[in-house]
Amino acid sequence: MTQTPEQELTDKVVASFDTAKDERFREVMQALVRHAHAFVRETRLTEDEWGAAVGFLTAAGRITTDTRQEFVLLSDVLGISMLTVAVNEPGLDESTESTVLGPFFVQDSPGIELGGNIAGGATGEPAWVDGRVTDTDGNPVPGARVEVWEADDDGMYDVQYDDAVLAGRAHLFTDAEGRYRFWGLTPTPYPIPDDGPVGRLLEHAGRSPMRAPHLHFMVTAPGFRRLITHIFVAGDTCLDADSVFGVKESLIRPFDRHEAGTPTPDSRRLEGRWTSTVFDIVLRKE
Amino acid sequence: MTQTPEQELTDKVVASFDTAKDERFREVMQALVRHAHAFVRETRLTEDEWGAAVGFLTAAGRITTDTRQEFVLLSDVLGISMLTVAVNEPGLDESTESTVLGPFFVQDSPGIELGGNIAGGATGEPAWVDGRVTDTDGNPVPGARVEVWEADDDGMYDVQYDDAVLAGRAHLFTDAEGRYRFWGLTPTPYPIPDDGPVGRLLEHAGRSPMRAPHLHFMVTAPGFRRLITHIFVAGDTCLDADSVFGVKESLIRPFDRHEAGTPTPDSRRLEGRWTSTVFDIVLRKE
Repeated sequence: MTQTPEQELTDKVVASFDTAKDERFREVMQALVRHAHAFVRETRLTEDEWGAAVGFLTAAGRITTDTRQEFVLLSDVLGISMLTVAVNEPGLDESTESTVLGPFFVQDSPGIELGGNIAGGATGEPAWVDGRVTDTDGNPVPGARVEVWEADDDGMYDVQYDDAVLAGRAHLFTDAEGRYRFWGLTPTPYPIPDDGPVGRLLEHAGRSPMRAPHLHFMVTAPGFRRLITHIFVAGDTCLDADSVFGVKESLIRPFDRHEAGTPTPDSRRLEGRWTSTVFDIVLRKE
Repeated sequence: MTQTPEQELTDKVVASFDTAKDERFREVMQALVRHAHAFVRETRLTEDEWGAAVGFLTAAGRITTDTRQEFVLLSDVLGISMLTVAVNEPGLDESTESTVLGPFFVQDSPGIELGGNIAGGATGEPAWVDGRVTDTDGNPVPGARVEVWEADDDGMYDVQYDDAVLAGRAHLFTDAEGRYRFWGLTPTPYPIPDDGPVGRLLEHAGRSPMRAPHLHFMVTAPGFRRLITHIFVAGDTCLDADSVFGVKESLIRPFDRHEAGTPTPDSRRLEGRWTSTVFDIVLRKE
């Protein structure tokens, strides 16, 4: 015997995980080995390509910090994040659909009152957002925590700036009827951070780094499944080419445009144009 | 339509690479997407597991330096490195088989004369290694560059020490008859670096980090395919459980033991025990 056939090697590596005590860990690792090996065998990966992959991961590791997560971006642009969301969706019912978390969520956002403003200095066109949080039977969910975050009109999240100021993010709680409302910013298209290896990968692929304009939500309430989602702006040209494949039909909302001086839902008159949208949220019981 | 079926998402991500101009890049990336998605779908990967994977890659990136390559280790322990070697083997002929490069090769090793010593201060039992480099028709290959490197008897390569001294590595050139000979160290088992995420993965899997004792070779000569390989020590207990799956039958060599004072092939009498082995190398024409 002078050569281990390829399949024999794969079998040996799979078997090396037989000793794992954690059954789920064993299952996941053995599947990872089988699929990774199938990829190498199918593509007949060259040693130079293997070296390029190691170089890519090394560069991704080097650029990753507490506020820049290149591995999440990689997962995002390969649709792996969105697929993970999909396989964890609780199945078709009336509950609001999920989409990707993205790399810009942070703990400890400021709390605001109902009707408050999440901007905190982030610039952009004001957007009034309101809605109701209910269960799948239509009953209100009072006291639900609604966490929202978004980029400013330069396409930047607060954590991408050098200072430590939190802006364009906040949390608030639904009232006794499950209602919430706040001032945010009309979402604008922006590129995912594309000055690193993932950006070069997109460029090499002839793909745009642009994300469809969106506003992030994370909604939690005792007894309910945590919902992580966005709303997207109806009519935007990026909806069909979102760089992380996050768009779902059911999450697209019209952002109605209003001229300066039109009375707002909270009875103000703004000096500039503003938009408004409604997003009713249905949580699924745990 | 309220939910994108999983396969539809995969198709969309695959199609996003249709715009890549480099045909091979497109082929490799589309295969990567298909196999990665098949893994996520098959395992129904949870969001926590996805987070653990991102955390693993982030930790691997953090520990990687110019002399510590955690991504290569990861590829090694998942058998991906060895499979890449396998799919690039030129097929069965008389030429010497390849195995993994490993993370410890460095450019610019010291040159030594035929019969010289590669130790350079690395400690261990002396081992005399000689052999002949030929082509697949048995003709000698004179002037072939034979690059060798190995760990000391503490299981450490020079680059794992804090100083910048090169030890346990050298290169030499075959003579007019294709012969080479040098003093190295009898290879001893050692663990791959296991104080990082890959070490924790092996521990969780109940796998040993030990490598079967070996001596690395890289042999190059104009007109021939570069050979990257090891020789392994016959009879060692780690041969069947090499942590990177690098062992091939054809690369196992007896290291004959000699008592102190037995005359050496270069007519010395050493104060301690020593070993000797023969490794004839057959290069394949390009």
